[in-house]
Amino acid sequence: MNDTFLRACRGEKTDYTPIWMMRQAGRFLPQYRKVSEKYGFLAMCRTPELAAEVTIQPVDVLGVDAAIFFSDILTTVAPMGMDLRYDEGKGPSFANPIKSKADVDRLTVPDPEETLGFVYKAQKILTRELANRVPFIGFAGGPFTVAAYMIEGTGTHTFSKVKTFVFTQPEAFKALMDKVSRLTASYLEMQAKAGSNALMIFDSFAGVLGPKDYLEFNFPYVKRIITDLKKTGVPIIYFGLGQHGGHAAVGKCGADVIGIDYNVTLDAAIAHLGKDVSVQGNLEPYVLLQSKEQIAARAKDVLARAKKARGHIFNLGHGVPLGTPVDNAKALVDTVHELSRR
Amino acid sequence: MNDTFLRACRGEKTDYTPIWMMRQAGRFLPQYRKVSEKYGFLAMCRTPELAAEVTIQPVDVLGVDAAIFFSDILTTVAPMGMDLRYDEGKGPSFANPIKSKADVDRLTVPDPEETLGFVYKAQKILTRELANRVPFIGFAGGPFTVAAYMIEGTGTHTFSKVKTFVFTQPEAFKALMDKVSRLTASYLEMQAKAGSNALMIFDSFAGVLGPKDYLEFNFPYVKRIITDLKKTGVPIIYFGLGQHGGHAAVGKCGADVIGIDYNVTLDAAIAHLGKDVSVQGNLEPYVLLQSKEQIAARAKDVLARAKKARGHIFNLGHGVPLGTPVDNAKALVDTVHELSRR
Repeated sequence: MNDTFLRACRGEKTDYTPIWMMRQAGRFLPQYRKVSEKYGFLAMCRTPELAAEVTIQPVDVLGVDAAIFFSDILTTVAPMGMDLRYDEGKGPSFANPIKSKADVDRLTVPDPEETLGFVYKAQKILTRELANRVPFIGFAGGPFTVAAYMIEGTGTHTFSKVKTFVFTQPEAFKALMDKVSRLTASYLEMQAKAGSNALMIFDSFAGVLGPKDYLEFNFPYVKRIITDLKKTGVPIIYFGLGQHGGHAAVGKCGADVIGIDYNVTLDAAIAHLGKDVSVQGNLEPYVLLQSKEQIAARAKDVLARAKKARGHIFNLGHGVPLGTPVDNAKALVDTVHELSRR
Repeated sequence: MNDTFLRACRGEKTDYTPIWMMRQAGRFLPQYRKVSEKYGFLAMCRTPELAAEVTIQPVDVLGVDAAIFFSDILTTVAPMGMDLRYDEGKGPSFANPIKSKADVDRLTVPDPEETLGFVYKAQKILTRELANRVPFIGFAGGPFTVAAYMIEGTGTHTFSKVKTFVFTQPEAFKALMDKVSRLTASYLEMQAKAGSNALMIFDSFAGVLGPKDYLEFNFPYVKRIITDLKKTGVPIIYFGLGQHGGHAAVGKCGADVIGIDYNVTLDAAIAHLGKDVSVQGNLEPYVLLQSKEQIAARAKDVLARAKKARGHIFNLGHGVPLGTPVDNAKALVDTVHELSRR
C-alpha cells in the first residue's frame, strides 16, 4: 500500500507530499454524477456498494494518496431520533429540530453497529478493494456541527438558533454535545474496526463560536472523542473550519493532524499549532478553476509555506468546487507530487 | 458634544471606553419596529426623516457614545444600474446579477449627490439633531461585499458565484471593484460633507477570500477608498469581518480604526495590527441574551484584552442579535462605562 499519507499524518519522512482533496468524491466527477443521478444522495450513502464505489472513484481518476469515505455529515442523526429529510436542491432539514432540554433528553445514543451497519459494510468493501492501493479515511461530522444542524433544523448562514441555544440554554447544549459526542466516538471506532486507516472529524461550523466559547462548548467534546479513539491506533485528523482564533488550542486536541482552511496563511497556522501535529490543507479551492500554470504556482506557494510543518498532507482549504474540470484536479495531484519530490 | 468616541478613534486619551453597537439601530428596539412596521425597510432607508429618526433612537434609549447612520449596505447599487428588490423575509436580490465583463461595462458610476441625495438630507438632519450630543458615523458597504452581492444576485453562504467570478474573470472582477470603489469613495465623501463625524466601511464578506487573494482582489480597493477619504479629515473605520489571516495587512489600509469580529482574541488581534491603529469590537453578540452578570463578566474580559490598544471603542463582534432585551443592551453600555472609568 502507498503509505505516504499515513506517514505524513504521523510526522514521518516521506518521499513526496501526499495529497487528497476534500469532497474529491463529489459532483465535479462525471463518474460520481452518473451514480448520483441513478440512485440519489441518500441511497448512495446508505448502500454499501455505492458508497464504496464513489469513495474509490477519485483514487482511480485523480491518483490521490488517500480516499475519503463517502458519507453524509448527518449520518448519525437519524438513529438518534431526528426526522432527517433531503428535499431536492434544498439540502438537509429536520421536521423536529432541537429546541429544549426535553428534546435533548428524548434523543437516544444508539449502538452504531446496530443502526449504522451500512457504513461498516461499505468500509469492509473498501478494506478489500483498496488493500494494495491507498489508505481510506473514515469520517464523521464534528459534534458541534452536528448539534448545530439539529438545532437549526435547516441550512443557515446566521446560526442564530444555535447561538441563541448555546447562550441561553448552555446546560442543555452541553447535554446535547455529550450525546452527539458519545455516538460520534463509537461511530468512528466502528469505522476503525471496519478498516479505516485514519479517522477525520469535519467540524464545518467550528467558526460559529469565537475562541472563548469554542473552548467551552466545542473543544472539550472534540478532545474527548479523540482521546476515546486513541485506542484504535489510527491517525486522527481534526478540521475545524473557521476556528482561527483558537489555533493554538486546536493543536492540543490530541489529533495527529489539523486541517487548515483557505482563510489563514499556512506558515502562520503552523507557527501557532506547534511541533506536535501535522497539518492538512490549505489551497484556495477555486484556484482549481484557473489554468494549470496558475494551479502549479499556487501549489508551489502552499508547499513552500508548509516547510516547517512536522508533516504536511496537501489538500484544499475546503471542498472541491462543483465546476472544477477533472483535468485540473488531476493536474494539481501531479504537480504536488512532482514539486515535492525535488 | 461627547467626543469620547472620536478621541478613541484617534488614539487620544479618554476618561472611559466609548461604546456603540453594530446594528444598534435595528429590530431589537421596539421604537425601531414601530417605524419599520409602518413604513417598511426601503422607505426607512430612503426617507431622510425616518432614517434620521431610527439612527437617533439608540442614542436616546441606550446612551451609546456614537450613532451609526441607518442605511442599507446596498444603497449605492441601484443608481449604478442594478435592479435591486427586497421581497418580504427574503433579503435583497437582483434580477440582473453581474455575470460578465459586459455587465460590468454597463454599470454607471453616478454622482452620489444627484442620485443619493436622500442620504445627504438624512445626515443634514442628524448634524442638527445630534449637534450637542454624540458623533454619528457615516457608512458604506465594503467594495468587495457590494460586488459580491451584485454577482451572487441573492443571499448565499457558499459564495460560489463570486468566487468563480474572481478566479475565472479576474480582470472583469477588478473592473467591477474599480467602479464600486469609486462610487463608495464619493458616497462616503458626500456623507462627510453632510456632517458625518466618522466614516465606516462594512466589509461583511471580507473573509470570503483567503489572505493572499484578499490582498489582490479586495485590499487595494479598500486602501484606495480610504486614501481618497483622508481629505475629509474625519476618522475612518474599516471592518473586515472574517479576514483573520490578513490582520497584519489590514492594519496598513490607512484606517484610523480596525473593527474586530467575535471570532478572534482581541489581544492577539491588537498584537498583529500594531500601534498605528485603534480597534473596535469584539464582544460575542449573543452574550447580550445572557444575564447582566454574565454580560458584565464578558465586557470586563474584552476591556482587559484591549489594554494594549492605541485606542479602543467597545463594540460587538457583529450585529446586535434580534432577540436582545433592550435592558441588556443598556446594561452593557452602562457596565462598559463604569468598568472602564476605574
